[in-house]
Amino acid sequence: MILNKSDAPNPLERLIRVLRKLPGIGERSASRLAFFILRGPGDLAHEMAEAILAVREKIHFCELCQNFTEVKRCSLCLSSERDHSLICLVEEPADLAAIEKAGTYRGLYHILHGAIAPMDGVGPEQLKIQELLNRVRSGGVKEVVLATNSNMEGEATALYIKDLLKGMSVRVTRLASGVPVGGDLEFTDPMTLARALESRHLYP
Amino acid sequence: MILNKSDAPNPLERLIRVLRKLPGIGERSASRLAFFILRGPGDLAHEMAEAILAVREKIHFCELCQNFTEVKRCSLCLSSERDHSLICLVEEPADLAAIEKAGTYRGLYHILHGAIAPMDGVGPEQLKIQELLNRVRSGGVKEVVLATNSNMEGEATALYIKDLLKGMSVRVTRLASGVPVGGDLEFTDPMTLARALESRHLYP
Repeated sequence: MILNKSDAPNPLERLIRVLRKLPGIGERSASRLAFFILRGPGDLAHEMAEAILAVREKIHFCELCQNFTEVKRCSLCLSSERDHSLICLVEEPADLAAIEKAGTYRGLYHILHGAIAPMDGVGPEQLKIQELLNRVRSGGVKEVVLATNSNMEGEATALYIKDLLKGMSVRVTRLASGVPVGGDLEFTDPMTLARALESRHLYP
Repeated sequence: MILNKSDAPNPLERLIRVLRKLPGIGERSASRLAFFILRGPGDLAHEMAEAILAVREKIHFCELCQNFTEVKRCSLCLSSERDHSLICLVEEPADLAAIEKAGTYRGLYHILHGAIAPMDGVGPEQLKIQELLNRVRSGGVKEVVLATNSNMEGEATALYIKDLLKGMSVRVTRLASGVPVGGDLEFTDPMTLARALESRHLYP
């Protein structure tokens, strides 16, 4: 469709088709990315192919928290400075990074690698839920903080996992929702305000 | 920044750095794409690496119009059904595709592979301008239609090339600007309306 048909530009069309599989990349973006890769700069194509293969070969899941790591067990899970009885359950590695940035959490993590989203074909079996249950079952875990996102998929996932943990002797908590610190009430969306009101607590 | 430092996750960070070189991909998108590539589906990583290398190896510029092709000279440039004395100068292969879709143009093309954009570090020497001048100099070309985009970079590029073609015995024309066919005046931006008024012509 971009080159003339009789030129049979299979490699280019194939690359565009592969790039379209990436999240958030449509037909136009895929073409633009393919052309950019073709034109350089430098040898972007080789650099990119190598980086993709290296990541696939060397990076895997930490056997405990399921975060990406090059070693068997990641440094967080190996750290003696963290509270191993506390697990914060997040959807993505980026969520872990955000919480670490806050600098106050001293427990371990568990990465689900997604949230339950039937519309996108993501069911519980695609997530690292079984691995969480195994961690809790193996003992030593006192609390699981459900820190999935505060949207529909995140809430559904939190609810689903709460039910699975029922009966295991572990405290299950949920990250608080409310008005962002430093945020104006005026610009806070109604859903958040409603949740903040609902979760109001005694002023110390 | 995403994994713990002591894990030294070089392959992942390297992939994110490479993906960030793509146009329109920032830090967050690059991380998201890298995670997606890592997690599958199927063997997306190998598929993608192979497609990138294949495109780099097999696709190159048509020796005449500079469009991407697998052969030496593309089928458009070889076609006896096209008017070889007429060259439509466009920025990108996608522009060629758009004009071909219109279905009325019977000449050949010349792809610049960009537009002059000093702010982005793109000067005339990065574009396929010399190749255009060579085509015109080699004779047989009666008209060059400047069909670069109707934005600042496109206009500057058209102006620059018009000056280069001055003195060569070739007619230089510019694609018309105006109100889109089927478009409402009400929703046409002021710049376009001004241009449409300026370029008004006698109603037949």
